[in-house]
Amino acid sequence: MTKRFQVVGIGNAMVDVLSHCEDAFLAANGVEKGIMQLIDMTRAVDLYARVGPSKEISGGSAANTIAGIAHLGGRTAYVGKVKDDQLGAIFAHDLRAQGAVYETTLADKASAAETGRCIVLVTPDGERSMNTYLGWSEHLGPDDIDTEMMAETEWIFLEGYRFDGPDSHAAFAKAIAATRGAGGRVSVTLSDPFCIDRHRDAFARMLREDVDLLFANRAEIKAMYKTEDFDAAIAAAAAEVELVVCTDSENGAYIIKGGDRWHVPAVPTRVVDATGAGDLFAGAFLWGLTNGHELQTCGRMACLAASEVISHIGARPEAELRTLFARHGLL
Amino acid sequence: MTKRFQVVGIGNAMVDVLSHCEDAFLAANGVEKGIMQLIDMTRAVDLYARVGPSKEISGGSAANTIAGIAHLGGRTAYVGKVKDDQLGAIFAHDLRAQGAVYETTLADKASAAETGRCIVLVTPDGERSMNTYLGWSEHLGPDDIDTEMMAETEWIFLEGYRFDGPDSHAAFAKAIAATRGAGGRVSVTLSDPFCIDRHRDAFARMLREDVDLLFANRAEIKAMYKTEDFDAAIAAAAAEVELVVCTDSENGAYIIKGGDRWHVPAVPTRVVDATGAGDLFAGAFLWGLTNGHELQTCGRMACLAASEVISHIGARPEAELRTLFARHGLL
Repeated sequence: MTKRFQVVGIGNAMVDVLSHCEDAFLAANGVEKGIMQLIDMTRAVDLYARVGPSKEISGGSAANTIAGIAHLGGRTAYVGKVKDDQLGAIFAHDLRAQGAVYETTLADKASAAETGRCIVLVTPDGERSMNTYLGWSEHLGPDDIDTEMMAETEWIFLEGYRFDGPDSHAAFAKAIAATRGAGGRVSVTLSDPFCIDRHRDAFARMLREDVDLLFANRAEIKAMYKTEDFDAAIAAAAAEVELVVCTDSENGAYIIKGGDRWHVPAVPTRVVDATGAGDLFAGAFLWGLTNGHELQTCGRMACLAASEVISHIGARPEAELRTLFARHGLL
Repeated sequence: MTKRFQVVGIGNAMVDVLSHCEDAFLAANGVEKGIMQLIDMTRAVDLYARVGPSKEISGGSAANTIAGIAHLGGRTAYVGKVKDDQLGAIFAHDLRAQGAVYETTLADKASAAETGRCIVLVTPDGERSMNTYLGWSEHLGPDDIDTEMMAETEWIFLEGYRFDGPDSHAAFAKAIAATRGAGGRVSVTLSDPFCIDRHRDAFARMLREDVDLLFANRAEIKAMYKTEDFDAAIAAAAAEVELVVCTDSENGAYIIKGGDRWHVPAVPTRVVDATGAGDLFAGAFLWGLTNGHELQTCGRMACLAASEVISHIGARPEAELRTLFARHGLL
């Protein structure tokens, strides 16, 4: 029987505040380049006052993945928490307008925490340095998990960043149990090396016990397995997870399943804004997988989707990805 | 003595909600193509629910002009009204971050009207159809005009759209009196042919009595002088306004002063989003004028600025306009 959803994602609901700056600005304002750093409301207000004119575009790592799947026509839903404020309305609109199901328990107006936002500073090399005020998204807990929705999906997709919220570990456990209990499968993205360092034990347990598909990039998988040897890290991951998909920037991606290993080359493009590359990679891969495509085809779709999203500002697709896939003979 | 400001702008403070759509969507949803239409909050909510994923970028016609002048390094300020909400904070941030002075009397949180927003629907031809919920910006009145600020500027720049607010006629009169009383001069943009139809008498009186520099496009100047004859409309304007600058899309612009008339060709570019073309044209022109450049040079700068802003999404400059001017031998 066909399940209602191909993929349900759970993660930090975020509106991105995208601004360009020089490398010197990062240094002068204590922003570490190329990673995600958590900031509180005070720092968010202070940093926002220093950055240049910005654009506001819905983001959030897993939300970008889900938006990508919806864009491709996949049956998909998202779980995350926003406040009943203007940014929360923008976030909800953009997911639903893309075709995803999005049901959330909104924080009410009395809450001090606002809808989460991420001040994304894009340097001339296209690299992004993310400053995340989690806001209301931090409070995602077991009560936000609708077990019926989890039972109705082929895959869940868990955002590693959410390990930063203690209640979210329990939320993930609840979602995993409900999904697996109904025959569904579990995918996770490691999200960020520093987030892994903060929660290595919880990540390790989940990978060992619950994960069917792992997404990571080179830095993340090395951090996860505490090694400088990329191949050793991949081998360690493949020993405990059935399907491992590891991106490696301009070197493309590696897919490892059992004894098989495939390399998929990246699709060269001019990097305007790297935000969302990994997210869209995962979205296209999951869409291909749940539509019955071969793993290598899924990988090629994923690399194409990543190259589309880094060629413009914003972490969600603008060009028709299906047309792009068709033009490359994948559909 | 040098005045504190070269240009102070007054207009509708707006955050643009930019979304792409096909022409069929406009027809199906009763949106008239290529013009600005006023909508109420109910329609704004309804239309927003129908449009696709969007980007939020600060806009507002005169605010774009002032942002352009600030971007060029000009001394400039803006008067407009936003609410103390998230969109109001975004609007204020983006003007200040660009280097403009922006002092406003914020509506408090209890007000039912929110910060104004404009749902800009961009069709594949790059044309934009604007759906404006004025919100709190509608209430701009004489109390919002700081006469000291007006006395401190070389030019004021008035947005024609604001004629849609009855209190704003009095606000404009107060601003004009304070500016002229201190030796400053008055520029106005006609903004929109339908707005002119709604307020032709008020426009006519202002042009006759108070305006030193008129910005208009072909459709607007024809609407203003109720003629299908473009040249006749320009002649009628030039008979009552010292300096007339009229844009004509891909035909460029005409500058008329006394018996002199210059034509400035447009700078060809691929139109991605026409939003802000006229606004940035006016901004670059005023910046050139207040920096002592010849009228024809001001016109060439203005056409370059317009071509930059229509080559990307959003109504404010992204490339360095001064570099662009220098590359074309204008600086």
